[in-house]
Formats: sequence, C-alpha cells, structure tokens
Amino acid sequence: MRVKIAENYGFCFGVKRAIKLAEENPNSTTLGPLIHNAKEINRLKEKFNVSVTEDIESIDKKQNVIIRTHGVPKNDMQSLQDSGINVTDATCPFVIKPQEICAQMDKEGYDVVIFGDINHPEIKGIMSYVREPIVVLNCSDLLKYNIKEKVAIVAQTTKRKDEYLKVVNKLIVEHREVRVFNTICNATFDNQDAALNLSKEVDIMLIIGGKNSSNTTQLYNICEINCSNSYLIEDVNDIEDIWFKNLNLCGITAGASTPDWIVQEVINRVQKI
Amino acid sequence: MRVKIAENYGFCFGVKRAIKLAEENPNSTTLGPLIHNAKEINRLKEKFNVSVTEDIESIDKKQNVIIRTHGVPKNDMQSLQDSGINVTDATCPFVIKPQEICAQMDKEGYDVVIFGDINHPEIKGIMSYVREPIVVLNCSDLLKYNIKEKVAIVAQTTKRKDEYLKVVNKLIVEHREVRVFNTICNATFDNQDAALNLSKEVDIMLIIGGKNSSNTTQLYNICEINCSNSYLIEDVNDIEDIWFKNLNLCGITAGASTPDWIVQEVINRVQKI
Repeated sequence: MRVKIAENYGFCFGVKRAIKLAEENPNSTTLGPLIHNAKEINRLKEKFNVSVTEDIESIDKKQNVIIRTHGVPKNDMQSLQDSGINVTDATCPFVIKPQEICAQMDKEGYDVVIFGDINHPEIKGIMSYVREPIVVLNCSDLLKYNIKEKVAIVAQTTKRKDEYLKVVNKLIVEHREVRVFNTICNATFDNQDAALNLSKEVDIMLIIGGKNSSNTTQLYNICEINCSNSYLIEDVNDIEDIWFKNLNLCGITAGASTPDWIVQEVINRVQKI
Repeated sequence: MRVKIAENYGFCFGVKRAIKLAEENPNSTTLGPLIHNAKEINRLKEKFNVSVTEDIESIDKKQNVIIRTHGVPKNDMQSLQDSGINVTDATCPFVIKPQEICAQMDKEGYDVVIFGDINHPEIKGIMSYVREPIVVLNCSDLLKYNIKEKVAIVAQTTKRKDEYLKVVNKLIVEHREVRVFNTICNATFDNQDAALNLSKEVDIMLIIGGKNSSNTTQLYNICEINCSNSYLIEDVNDIEDIWFKNLNLCGITAGASTPDWIVQEVINRVQKI
C-alpha cells in the first residue's frame, strides 16, 4: 500500500524540539512534565532516564534540568541559574515570544493583558514578566480591572482566535490604543488544513490519536467529509487489513498529542499491506 | 412649556470650535468648506464675510486663511506657511490625532492602514502624513496590498466602530502585531444615547435637522420608541402649537448638522407656548 503523510500532523515544532533536547540530555530531570502527554513522558523516562521533578527545591544540583515547553516563571529560572544548576531550555520559542513582548510592553508603560488560563504553566511563566499582569479568559474578566488607555495584549499560544478577538475588540472600543500581538500558534489549524487537503486525494485515511482527544476527533470529522474510508486509530494494533482491499493510496495524519514513534509504527505497518 | 435639552446634541466639539474661530476671524477665507453644512457656511459669509476658496493658488496673500475641520494635506499647510499667509487652524483635534499617530507609526517602521474614504478631505489630510498610506474601506480592500507583519491602523473619525473592527480583526489574524488606534469620534453615538435617555422622560420630543439627514432620521426613530409625540422639524417654522396641548415637558435634540442658532430659536419658541 502506498502511503502519503499529511503536510502537517502530530506534535508541533515546539514539542518536537523539546523531545529532541530531552533525548540529547539523558539522565536529566524536567521541572514539571516536559509536554502534556503521559505516554511520551514514560518513554523518555524508560529510554533516556529523563525524570520529572515538581519542586525546584528537591532538584539534585548535579543533575541537568530541562525547562518544559510551556516555560517557567522568571524567578524559577533565576533560582536555577543562581544555584549553578545546568539548565537546558526547552521552552517553545512561540512561548518565549509573548514572554519577551510582555516584558517590553511593561517597560514601555502599557497595561499588559494576557488572554489565557491563569492556572496553565505557560501563563504562569508569561505573567512573571509583567509587574501587574491582567490575566483574562473572556470579556467579563476585563471588568475586574481598571485598565489604562494604552494597552498591550498577548494570547496563550493554544487559544482559539475567535475568542481572542472578542476580548481584543472590547478593549479596542474602550481604549485609545490597543497593541495586539498575535501569539496564537498555528500548529493545530495547520494540522486541520493539511488533513482536509490530504483527504481529498487518497482512497483511505488513518487518523492517529486518542479516541477521547478533541483535536483528533476534529481531524477525523474533517477527513470523513472527503474520504468515506476514514478510520480513527489509537495505534498500530487497531489496523485491520480488510480496510485496504482494492485501494491504492493511504493518507495518514495524527492529533497534536500523538508522538511521532506511534505514527512511524503505523506507516511501517501500512506500507507492508 | 418646560423645555429639557438632550445632554448631547447637534454640532460636535470640533465643529463648534471651528465656527467660533471663523466668527473671531471675520473677512477670512476657508480652504474648502469649513464644515459640511451649507446653511451655516452661508451664515458665516453673510455675517462675518468668511468666504470659501477651493484653490490654494487663488488665495489673496493678505487674507487670513482658516483650515477646515477636516484638515488639509501636509503639503498644502506647508505651502500656506511658506507663502507667509496667516493661518488659523480649525482642524478638529480629533482629526489632528490620527495625523500625528500616522506620522509617528510611519517613522517607527509600521505599515500604516487608514480605514476611511479616500475621497474625503479628512482622509486626504491624514494620508499625507504617511509615505505609503494603505487606505481601505473594507476587508477585501486589504487584499490589494502586501502588508508587513507590523501594522498600525487608524480610522476616519466618523466611521462606524463595527465596520472598523472587521478590518482590524482580519489584520490581527494575519499579522504578528497590529497597533490599533481608536480614532473614531463618539459625538454621533453620544447624541443617539442622549436622545434615547431624554425621550424616556418627556411628554413630547422635537428632533431638529434636515429631513433628508440620515443621522437626524436615526435620532427621530430612536425617540419615537419611547415617546409617541416625537416630531422631526427643520426649524422653528415647522412647530404647531396644537402638539403641546395638555403636555408639560418638551425634550429637544438636534442632528449633527444642525447649527446651535437654529436649536436656540426652537427653544425660545417652545418656552413661550
């Protein structure tokens, strides 16, 4: 069976980079989980002895510490550096960007609004770069603050654009200047676009990911419109040979939480059919 | 009859200021009509000998020139100053603001988008402060340009906010940084809000303005919801005493193109009923 992979699928740039850094630094520990995928975290522990530490105080000073994709608060980074611990920074560059923007906007005298979840590690990190961060999830959250006429705003990288625009628009109507930074990562949208395109040209589509995963289910729904032979599978074990009878070209995509090695196992298996 | 005037009505701040400057500078000429109201332009000509010149070349150098509320292109202002003509600047401060913003943003390296009508004198003035202005009326106009990642945007002062936001949102989704300046003047919206409030507490509403005027008709429609005794009048001559029989309190508002002296004549007449 011929196989064609979606132009964008699975792990995003930042996650791929972080895993590579973890693999290149065996026996390290990460401050909090490197990414939000337990299966991959287990693999890194088993194959590379990369462990997870939740508490900065309990880190062995001789151990290399990897900063998670979501980043850490400024003070945590400072503490690590001050204590002479070797640090490998796997913060996603798309997360470093809003950290830098927030620091600069705070310096230039703007009130800084962060659109995101105050409990998410990414936001905890970004917040630490602003003296008085204003963290909101919706327009009504804005009412809790007395915001200046000059405002800058950034978004959590994984937020939905339409929800970001609602908050941005409320600010624009009520303030003289709103400096809007589009810090939302396009990876999820790119995966969807690529799945849509691929599903138009293949005989069968395999969408790899957790059956409970919202973004994987979305990929499946998108593919099914153009390719009625679409199957959502968790890994190679779900594949049935009969699906491929009399077909030539198989498209493959994967949800944002699916590691590459699971995708590769599926590719190898399908190529042998 | 007791009279209550709407909290906001008629001429906006910038128009009132311009007329005051014209009255204080009799025998002047304005470069283009001072405001978009022929009746008031005639009054200034008759009472203060303030004329209108369309062509900068034909201005008598001994005459004082008044700059219209909408402003003039930077080069016209420069030509006037270079030729030693005495200039009285009646440009609305709310129009000077986007001129200044555009000049600064151009200097800082932003692509400058102006949301407005390219044929309107206000926009002709604002455009002149940018080396390569991008003037758009809607989202599809944006497609004509190859706009940089860093964009600044201002709006014509009289534009609708919802239409401005449509263009702004398209830019935000497609660009890294959009610096949004809310340069829309609130005068029209303030007049509508004030008319709505007043119409709830009076027995009769008079809405003064041209019967062809869009914003005056809007005021009338707003008032009629709460006050069935609402009348749209052009001036004092339209008033009929019978409207006021057995009523106590008369509310008065006026469209954005209605001079104060027409409003005052109406107030005086109603108070004598």
